[in-house]
Amino acid sequence: MTKTIKNIGVFTSGGDAPGMNASLYAIIKAASLKNITITGIWQGYDGMVDASFTHLHPKNLAPHVHQGGTIIKTSRSPRFLTLKGRIKAAKNLKKAKIDALIAIGGDGTFRGLMALKEICDIPTIGIPGTIDNDMMGTDYTLGFDSAVNTAINAIDNIRDTAESHNRIFLVEVMGRDSGYIAINSGLCTAADGILIPESKKDQVLLLNKLQHFKNRESLIIVVAEGDETGAIVMAEKIKAINKKVDVRITILGHIQRGGNPTAFDRLLGIRLGVAALDEVLKGTTNVMAGLLNNKITFTPFEKVVKQHKVQTELKELVELFSR
Amino acid sequence: MTKTIKNIGVFTSGGDAPGMNASLYAIIKAASLKNITITGIWQGYDGMVDASFTHLHPKNLAPHVHQGGTIIKTSRSPRFLTLKGRIKAAKNLKKAKIDALIAIGGDGTFRGLMALKEICDIPTIGIPGTIDNDMMGTDYTLGFDSAVNTAINAIDNIRDTAESHNRIFLVEVMGRDSGYIAINSGLCTAADGILIPESKKDQVLLLNKLQHFKNRESLIIVVAEGDETGAIVMAEKIKAINKKVDVRITILGHIQRGGNPTAFDRLLGIRLGVAALDEVLKGTTNVMAGLLNNKITFTPFEKVVKQHKVQTELKELVELFSR
Amino acid sequence: MTKTIKNIGVFTSGGDAPGMNASLYAIIKAASLKNITITGIWQGYDGMVDASFTHLHPKNLAPHVHQGGTIIKTSRSPRFLTLKGRIKAAKNLKKAKIDALIAIGGDGTFRGLMALKEICDIPTIGIPGTIDNDMMGTDYTLGFDSAVNTAINAIDNIRDTAESHNRIFLVEVMGRDSGYIAINSGLCTAADGILIPESKKDQVLLLNKLQHFKNRESLIIVVAEGDETGAIVMAEKIKAINKKVDVRITILGHIQRGGNPTAFDRLLGIRLGVAALDEVLKGTTNVMAGLLNNKITFTPFEKVVKQHKVQTELKELVELFSR
Amino acid sequence: MTKTIKNIGVFTSGGDAPGMNASLYAIIKAASLKNITITGIWQGYDGMVDASFTHLHPKNLAPHVHQGGTIIKTSRSPRFLTLKGRIKAAKNLKKAKIDALIAIGGDGTFRGLMALKEICDIPTIGIPGTIDNDMMGTDYTLGFDSAVNTAINAIDNIRDTAESHNRIFLVEVMGRDSGYIAINSGLCTAADGILIPESKKDQVLLLNKLQHFKNRESLIIVVAEGDETGAIVMAEKIKAINKKVDVRITILGHIQRGGNPTAFDRLLGIRLGVAALDEVLKGTTNVMAGLLNNKITFTPFEKVVKQHKVQTELKELVELFSR
Repeated sequence: MTKTIKNIGVFTSGGDAPGMNASLYAIIKAASLKNITITGIWQGYDGMVDASFTHLHPKNLAPHVHQGGTIIKTSRSPRFLTLKGRIKAAKNLKKAKIDALIAIGGDGTFRGLMALKEICDIPTIGIPGTIDNDMMGTDYTLGFDSAVNTAINAIDNIRDTAESHNRIFLVEVMGRDSGYIAINSGLCTAADGILIPESKKDQVLLLNKLQHFKNRESLIIVVAEGDETGAIVMAEKIKAINKKVDVRITILGHIQRGGNPTAFDRLLGIRLGVAALDEVLKGTTNVMAGLLNNKITFTPFEKVVKQHKVQTELKELVELFSR
Repeated sequence: MTKTIKNIGVFTSGGDAPGMNASLYAIIKAASLKNITITGIWQGYDGMVDASFTHLHPKNLAPHVHQGGTIIKTSRSPRFLTLKGRIKAAKNLKKAKIDALIAIGGDGTFRGLMALKEICDIPTIGIPGTIDNDMMGTDYTLGFDSAVNTAINAIDNIRDTAESHNRIFLVEVMGRDSGYIAINSGLCTAADGILIPESKKDQVLLLNKLQHFKNRESLIIVVAEGDETGAIVMAEKIKAINKKVDVRITILGHIQRGGNPTAFDRLLGIRLGVAALDEVLKGTTNVMAGLLNNKITFTPFEKVVKQHKVQTELKELVELFSR
Repeated sequence: MTKTIKNIGVFTSGGDAPGMNASLYAIIKAASLKNITITGIWQGYDGMVDASFTHLHPKNLAPHVHQGGTIIKTSRSPRFLTLKGRIKAAKNLKKAKIDALIAIGGDGTFRGLMALKEICDIPTIGIPGTIDNDMMGTDYTLGFDSAVNTAINAIDNIRDTAESHNRIFLVEVMGRDSGYIAINSGLCTAADGILIPESKKDQVLLLNKLQHFKNRESLIIVVAEGDETGAIVMAEKIKAINKKVDVRITILGHIQRGGNPTAFDRLLGIRLGVAALDEVLKGTTNVMAGLLNNKITFTPFEKVVKQHKVQTELKELVELFSR
Repeated sequence: MTKTIKNIGVFTSGGDAPGMNASLYAIIKAASLKNITITGIWQGYDGMVDASFTHLHPKNLAPHVHQGGTIIKTSRSPRFLTLKGRIKAAKNLKKAKIDALIAIGGDGTFRGLMALKEICDIPTIGIPGTIDNDMMGTDYTLGFDSAVNTAINAIDNIRDTAESHNRIFLVEVMGRDSGYIAINSGLCTAADGILIPESKKDQVLLLNKLQHFKNRESLIIVVAEGDETGAIVMAEKIKAINKKVDVRITILGHIQRGGNPTAFDRLLGIRLGVAALDEVLKGTTNVMAGLLNNKITFTPFEKVVKQHKVQTELKELVELFSR
């Protein structure tokens, strides 16, 4: 163990995700039992550039474990992207006697840590926090389970309404490059079609299917925002091939980013938080803590790129259930 | 009391609304204690035309009181709009020995009852069931409170996310002719702007305000679908006056029609259901049961038109809170 | 209008209730538009005794409108019950140049304001905040609708489970002296029995009914905690008359006090908050703002005692639906 | 593949669990694409004894995927425990030309299949459905994630209320022999103590800790119903060592068994359902489909006993966070 680590800086960065507060709580609680100081860095890299620091105690976090967002705020920091900004950040860390860093965020966050490494050689560990679930090195990212549950609760409401005739409900969920939210929420709501960015065939198949759409039924189609077209253009395509059908659009948007984290995301945040703390105290650096096949694993930042491949089993389920 | 009423037909018609099952339950439960038979009519006026009837017992409904939708289904029936359809419906009612009708639906439903009256003189009472809350004769329609709660829970999630800079969230809620859902959900979520069909000034004021929008804050704007423009066109208008701002859209759509009814809607359904039953047994006809100033009131169908005026107190609150 | 009111102290006191933050928000927002300063008093009367004050701006509250609890905390203050404590409080108010008070709480809170009046003659207005709904002068108290919705969502889950044979579910809800939560949640969940403190006959009738309980069905009984016996003793009574029956207990307890406020409670809080502000600015004092028959009304504190009478219409519904 | 399998009987048995409907849906949907008939057996083994069968189509299930409970009902069947009952069941299966069975339930359900095997040699596969998560052969049982989420949402509400002084909240969650629900819900809510059946030391430690309990704070303690004492006796123990403390009890009971299934439980049900169908069509028999380290695995019924060991990582987290 690197004996000099007495004070660890923690921050959240990029888009926020439900479960970040639970992970912060776990880090701080575990650290307090080991007499390690935790310094919270406000608003991600912005707070590092501005020396905007705060001491964090478990009591500060316990009342927020069940809340979405992140109590130490997050941001995307253009200033940290400059060398000047990073030098300032490194100085501030040194001045505040911060010996190591734990960051919760996405691949951009981890690239930031790699850039920082060149001018500030302290151990850094990352925790994957993004609702999109599109990262190598972990089966689940923090916030994904919560986002999917938000989406399915919304789609369930549509299922509840009278099964009107001749009506198509298009529900657009998040996922610019990734169909994970669409796939999971579509499967879980018995959707009649799921359109994802990873496939171009899916739109063609669906439009073919809709040419034979009988007006005695209703369909629910889940569309990832990053599909070739979002819900709005898709609605026009459907109307172009079937003028009589009544197409209704729901765009969930940012409601998927908020809300109380689910049990799964809280426990994931707690497990990864405790593991990241233990690992950084050993002096390990430049790795992301993740959950692979239900085991905690550490993957070098270099290998943690965005993942565009959907799990084969899920892909087959989508093909099966969309028929 | 008209002694001959032994068997009452009940049905739901038009768009479904949370609380309909609770109201059905109350009618059937209260009727069973008075030895009145309740005949359920499937899918609104369609079931009347098709003689699609079923006997309903309280035990059938109790497991569904907490569910959205309506277990006896609903529809908009083009056939009943024809004289031929209505004559067939009247014959079916007679054949099934149905002595009176209780209908849960909107103004179209009640116009249907008035049209039926010309060829079938049995007492009919209506219960207002529509999420839009835009009817004379009642302060609240069945489903409105549930729809507003669905909307605010969604908007709350947006509030949860990191208060990003320079971002405007546009949330489109239901309400083609009525701003009630927009007003209530906007006030309840501390929205920075509320746009409703009843006002044209509101867009102008908001766009003026946005010209001075500083990029260190975020705004949540709630837009009724029936506003001069919905959320999508509004987003373009905003970008036209401020190119740097990041506008994000959520369109709630049909998720507001489903979901479990709130306590308020269930109790409203129960109170109106029991009152409607008592009243129709007295032979009263052609009236809608409603809640005015917390008292149950009966208003002739003729007076129950769509209401486009928003309550003055609420309108003033919107003006106050949008400043 | 009393021209000297420039600075109003606001506080929450007694048991907290969902909707308090929404009401605080409305008071502060409306005050800011009238250039009135709002001073928040921490932890109710305790903060008054300790001069624990803070300035409140609408921006502080907007992120908390959707949260339960109260961001300025609440307490029951033994020190304020002494004359010495009240004299200290009065001095602190004077020093902080607080010209009027708006308090959100229960009857104890309002008695506190009356006691304060003897030594500090500034206008005071109350807003009813308690989940029990047992106060004169208003049809609804802040938090009641939220508590009932929490209770029905819990009971709905029990309804969902397989309709096992020969099983009785006893659900204890809050209400020491008042059956309002039990009545509303029982009616809204089609409960087979509702036991309230206001009636002694109800237990007798239920136990009689249970002697003929057939083992081919399941029952849900809602019990107010303030009923002659709570759920635990009631379970023993039932087993004493029917040994074979399987009795399962749920005690909801404090989960009814928390959770996000419903739309109804938020809007009630907003309406009463804005009205209380307007009224106190006129110099009106010693009254509680309430909603009677959907109209805002002000009732002198002297008349705002606890109310033990349940609304007749609801009582009749309970008798009807428990048969 | 055993070519003779044309018709598979499916049933749910034992305590119901959220996610059962999703699993049924997946089996039926996947079977329909393979031209396999699915026969639903009502109320578990009772329906087998009574020849209470129904044909199931995907359209029957889609509207129920998001609901708790099981639409083909469940039961514990004393008659099937007799040889006579099982012989009758076997005859009924033969008569209905059922070639294989898929059962969703707990270890009792699988023992039933083993007993049936002696007189009826058709392939049988099980799917683990129980909220307790206490089975060998799978990391997660159907319903566990939903039950934990129900529990944490309830405990979150308690967290929301004003942080009163000197108050201890005891929350009893399900788990007769297993602390899984208590552990997961306690960790996810930052509980100050977690008491489980698997440990006797935990009560001793907690009571020691409470002797030094300062009256300026509040504690939340999660107790499994199967702990040495439940919440009620625990409350008395606490009061015996500290008379001044105010102890409040919540017993969640059967609300943990109901409610809409979470995304995790739905997807688990879908994955296991599709896998079980594929496997039984190969002629595999007497195994349970489970998820071990995120991979679908089949474990012989003989090895699927109740599991009383809590995962080491979780146990260490509980010890860490309870300090």
